[in-house]
Amino acid sequence: VQAVREPAQADQLLLLDASSDRLSSQQHAEIEAQRANTAITRRATVTSMEELLYAALPVLDHGFIRVIDYMGDDPAIVQAARVSYGAGTKQKRGDAGLINYLMRNRHTSPFEMCEIKLHVKLPIFVARQWVRHRAASLNEYSARYSILDREFYIPAPDALAKQATTNRQGRGEILEPEQAQRVLEMLRADAHQAYLRYEHLLGETATGAAVPDGIGLARELARMDLTLNVYTQWYWKVDLHNLLHFLKLRADPHAQYEIRAYANVLLQILKVWVPLAFEAFKQYRLDAYEISSKGLGVVRRLLAGGSVDAASSGMSAGEYRELMGVLGLSER
Amino acid sequence: VQAVREPAQADQLLLLDASSDRLSSQQHAEIEAQRANTAITRRATVTSMEELLYAALPVLDHGFIRVIDYMGDDPAIVQAARVSYGAGTKQKRGDAGLINYLMRNRHTSPFEMCEIKLHVKLPIFVARQWVRHRAASLNEYSARYSILDREFYIPAPDALAKQATTNRQGRGEILEPEQAQRVLEMLRADAHQAYLRYEHLLGETATGAAVPDGIGLARELARMDLTLNVYTQWYWKVDLHNLLHFLKLRADPHAQYEIRAYANVLLQILKVWVPLAFEAFKQYRLDAYEISSKGLGVVRRLLAGGSVDAASSGMSAGEYRELMGVLGLSER
Amino acid sequence: VQAVREPAQADQLLLLDASSDRLSSQQHAEIEAQRANTAITRRATVTSMEELLYAALPVLDHGFIRVIDYMGDDPAIVQAARVSYGAGTKQKRGDAGLINYLMRNRHTSPFEMCEIKLHVKLPIFVARQWVRHRAASLNEYSARYSILDREFYIPAPDALAKQATTNRQGRGEILEPEQAQRVLEMLRADAHQAYLRYEHLLGETATGAAVPDGIGLARELARMDLTLNVYTQWYWKVDLHNLLHFLKLRADPHAQYEIRAYANVLLQILKVWVPLAFEAFKQYRLDAYEISSKGLGVVRRLLAGGSVDAASSGMSAGEYRELMGVLGLSER
Amino acid sequence: VQAVREPAQADQLLLLDASSDRLSSQQHAEIEAQRANTAITRRATVTSMEELLYAALPVLDHGFIRVIDYMGDDPAIVQAARVSYGAGTKQKRGDAGLINYLMRNRHTSPFEMCEIKLHVKLPIFVARQWVRHRAASLNEYSARYSILDREFYIPAPDALAKQATTNRQGRGEILEPEQAQRVLEMLRADAHQAYLRYEHLLGETATGAAVPDGIGLARELARMDLTLNVYTQWYWKVDLHNLLHFLKLRADPHAQYEIRAYANVLLQILKVWVPLAFEAFKQYRLDAYEISSKGLGVVRRLLAGGSVDAASSGMSAGEYRELMGVLGLSER
Repeated sequence: VQAVREPAQADQLLLLDASSDRLSSQQHAEIEAQRANTAITRRATVTSMEELLYAALPVLDHGFIRVIDYMGDDPAIVQAARVSYGAGTKQKRGDAGLINYLMRNRHTSPFEMCEIKLHVKLPIFVARQWVRHRAASLNEYSARYSILDREFYIPAPDALAKQATTNRQGRGEILEPEQAQRVLEMLRADAHQAYLRYEHLLGETATGAAVPDGIGLARELARMDLTLNVYTQWYWKVDLHNLLHFLKLRADPHAQYEIRAYANVLLQILKVWVPLAFEAFKQYRLDAYEISSKGLGVVRRLLAGGSVDAASSGMSAGEYRELMGVLGLSER
Repeated sequence: VQAVREPAQADQLLLLDASSDRLSSQQHAEIEAQRANTAITRRATVTSMEELLYAALPVLDHGFIRVIDYMGDDPAIVQAARVSYGAGTKQKRGDAGLINYLMRNRHTSPFEMCEIKLHVKLPIFVARQWVRHRAASLNEYSARYSILDREFYIPAPDALAKQATTNRQGRGEILEPEQAQRVLEMLRADAHQAYLRYEHLLGETATGAAVPDGIGLARELARMDLTLNVYTQWYWKVDLHNLLHFLKLRADPHAQYEIRAYANVLLQILKVWVPLAFEAFKQYRLDAYEISSKGLGVVRRLLAGGSVDAASSGMSAGEYRELMGVLGLSER
Repeated sequence: VQAVREPAQADQLLLLDASSDRLSSQQHAEIEAQRANTAITRRATVTSMEELLYAALPVLDHGFIRVIDYMGDDPAIVQAARVSYGAGTKQKRGDAGLINYLMRNRHTSPFEMCEIKLHVKLPIFVARQWVRHRAASLNEYSARYSILDREFYIPAPDALAKQATTNRQGRGEILEPEQAQRVLEMLRADAHQAYLRYEHLLGETATGAAVPDGIGLARELARMDLTLNVYTQWYWKVDLHNLLHFLKLRADPHAQYEIRAYANVLLQILKVWVPLAFEAFKQYRLDAYEISSKGLGVVRRLLAGGSVDAASSGMSAGEYRELMGVLGLSER
Repeated sequence: VQAVREPAQADQLLLLDASSDRLSSQQHAEIEAQRANTAITRRATVTSMEELLYAALPVLDHGFIRVIDYMGDDPAIVQAARVSYGAGTKQKRGDAGLINYLMRNRHTSPFEMCEIKLHVKLPIFVARQWVRHRAASLNEYSARYSILDREFYIPAPDALAKQATTNRQGRGEILEPEQAQRVLEMLRADAHQAYLRYEHLLGETATGAAVPDGIGLARELARMDLTLNVYTQWYWKVDLHNLLHFLKLRADPHAQYEIRAYANVLLQILKVWVPLAFEAFKQYRLDAYEISSKGLGVVRRLLAGGSVDAASSGMSAGEYRELMGVLGLSER
């Protein structure tokens, strides 16, 4: 049984250039114009984030994340925690120590003092998961006012999998290559067909060309005939604390593959933006494990040389198995 | 030119009974079982809301709103405003007077002290507008975990309209009957086709029957082939202040017809639940008009016997036209 | 060295009756009138919560918590998680199992579907900590509009302690009895003196009596001369998810003694209201411990029979000490 | 009868320099060090905001507002509204026109795309009003961890007023000069006395000097003896939409004088930061008036040449008087 490949976690962020067809030449030109525009500022500035600004970082087959703006850096977290008159810390414990302390003890408010603004292109079914994170600001491209582009998500063959059998939510084994090809052809055909109908109902294409014999139906109505893998786009602005919460849930192996692909790129951006907060987040949140009070009892008994099994642990089978995995023990 | 019919604003709320096919017989039975279950309570109770509890109120062709629970009533607003030890008001100005005062002067926090919980069935494209209201709690039916029902929104013929020409967002004149029929047939065919494909990809129907030669694709993937008019459902819980904000925006003529249909039913529920707050909301919010400082200058000049026209008003053409309409004056 | 006594964690919630002087006889009468008022409801009802409704539960020397209203119960959490047409669960895994699952896997949204409304009397310095929890609704008694009562918090002698020396935040050893008495006399004298001045500035008492030679200063100004231990009161409404978050932080040993006294009473209310959620919260949150990735490494090494000390753990001294404590190991 | 002087609305923002004793020389030095630190950025930058950065803008007798950081500018609002790939607008209607349109039609989400971070020093009773605005991030100076400075708000003589008689909330006529002097002496003496006691209880001063015969009481306890006019300080970060909401309520004549003093400085900052949004806010919010449906009926009748009086208007006396004032009509 082959499992679905993990979403890419490139060490190096890829910036799309003009050779990519993911953006039109006009979009490339607008982005380049904005990148060329610099100013002098007294604000907290992260040199390596400046390199990323406005550039499109590819996600999935047609999506991207663009960093539009950011506020604050690692020292700004410290500055807010200290309610300081100057920058960063001047105490024995450096910025890293204080940031670790804040993360470990869930002093979350200083992390709210950093903010990031992104332009994201993503499939509608991913967008629907994304908006469940309410503590963020959002401007979505309006399909009442404008026409959506002819772009829809078609998974890579090794991301196509059967319904999981061990839990009722998620993917199990990967499809056989031939079956995968058939599924991809169906998805492609259906999305194309739906988009053609969309244009026919509109009587107009996304670039403004007339569609012969088209209906001229209101855009807010015509869109209902599109499939859920059509790409939408939005501006999304969130503070660092809420971004970390998003990443804890969406970079998790239980999250759907497609939103994890976005989360993984966001993790890379995080590392560039606030490297100390990123390390603290990995150490105390992302790669940490919350052990229940029964679980703590099990660990204490084992450390005292006692023996435990699933039945005597008082835990459910699933919990016990998960705990043994985390502790690096084969299940007893 | 015929305009789109307004969404229904029934004076009487319609409760679906067992003869309706909008709910399965098992769903009817579950609802009836819960309606039959009563208890004695000391909590603030609204007799006429008890009549509505759990019953499905139809919206659009397959949707509904069910009131699952409510907290507070008109006197509870007063009680919170006064931080009182008992119920309601004991002062000269009665509950209605104080509620009007609070609404007029935007003392919004006492309205947050009432809460309502709803079960809503709605098309996905409506759901996407709805969730933009972030100050509410939400549990949506999971299409990663479960299979969506074979239900999709097909507009009534007189709700089908061309793209508006006066503003770029919204509907203009209604389609000719024949053209409307052709559009409806397309929408129906496309949604059915997409749903058949969904079942084929799943290898299973919503009721658990196997689909011959089906794929068994993961549910979280198969759903991407559905169209945006498929119905989803959720539990939605919101406080009265945020519900009023939702209604101000979504019962407005500029809101999309389909979400207004839901807003109109919510207005009826509001009237049953908190009649004094409902009247205050109509008087000071829904049927009120915020006049800009330039607009106030125009009104003052007119009342002083002077004359004004669009040019001398300093307002944009659209603003001036709207103001004249509100003032009951033909445009000068 | 004697430590500060823990805030009371009574197994039995104490309901104030008319013999208590914490409420005026008129307040008692208003409360009794509301308790006498019952109705029949179809809503989810918790019989033992009905017993608590409106009654004052004492906290500190003059404070209280009163449950004014509640929405939902344990089955309502399950109902929302399932987006169900009826009540609770009908599956093999009962309500308790599903609630444990939701808590363990941080599926927090179903817990938002329960709501509670409280009337709280509390010292201003506690109120200032309390409002840092923003995801709640609040109506505070207005000292611009009304006159605050002559009530201020004076700690019990065994709650008076020196500044901690081990960490810079919190209390260390308890004061010697004589010193404690002197401090209490100072606090009492200062608060009384400040209140007398408040009345003089107002020219009026809280009960409306004129103060001879009083100034008649605006209430919004006169209050600035009061001390921070004066009691205020408010209506506070919060959903269960956010209440659990409040309790995780405020029932913690690092929280200030005075707010923990309120948190402990809230925990008792929780147990009455949603006993299954309460147990899950204790098991997976309150008595759980989040182990960092370095901490997991330490545990794995120990379980594999290896040895670790603070230096080789890669953890800070404080972290390592805390982990050893949690694991029931003397520090190595 | 003399009314309380309005809080200052300087056209020119005053930046404190090293000659001011509102900041210590060390604080001045830290601020200057941060102001001297510049970098090149691609981010949206507002030159005149850079001038303000980190400098203290005085408010009341000891308070200040310092702009610590900002994100976005007027074109960023347009960019988000258009979900654009480049900056600002390229359409016929320029940035100003679109920003006016968004403000007028309550399209609030693009305004959330700008963010500002402030360091504020303010009296505790003002801080208690301020935090009622929950949609913001906050880090307050901790009086559990640190010692508050010896600074308390003493009003200017012409800000001292009697309780209003026309409404129950707010200030009426100003105190006679001699009476004002007596009140100021009392406030000064009480605050000094309380602060002396605070130091005695702590056994230590804010600068770390030992207090002879001091108690060494925990800081979290000692603070309860301070008066409500003691200054606290915090970092506060908010988006533009929520800042406008704050200003609509707190720059209003019904807001307490002391918080209006802060709101007025914030309005000046707004004008420097986002001049187009500032003008739109004044035009459509701050200087606008929401007329109720009954009020609209009155205006329409008057414009049609009819006559109306309070009785026939259907409005309350207060509402009618207010409307007549807004319309520039003497009451009829």
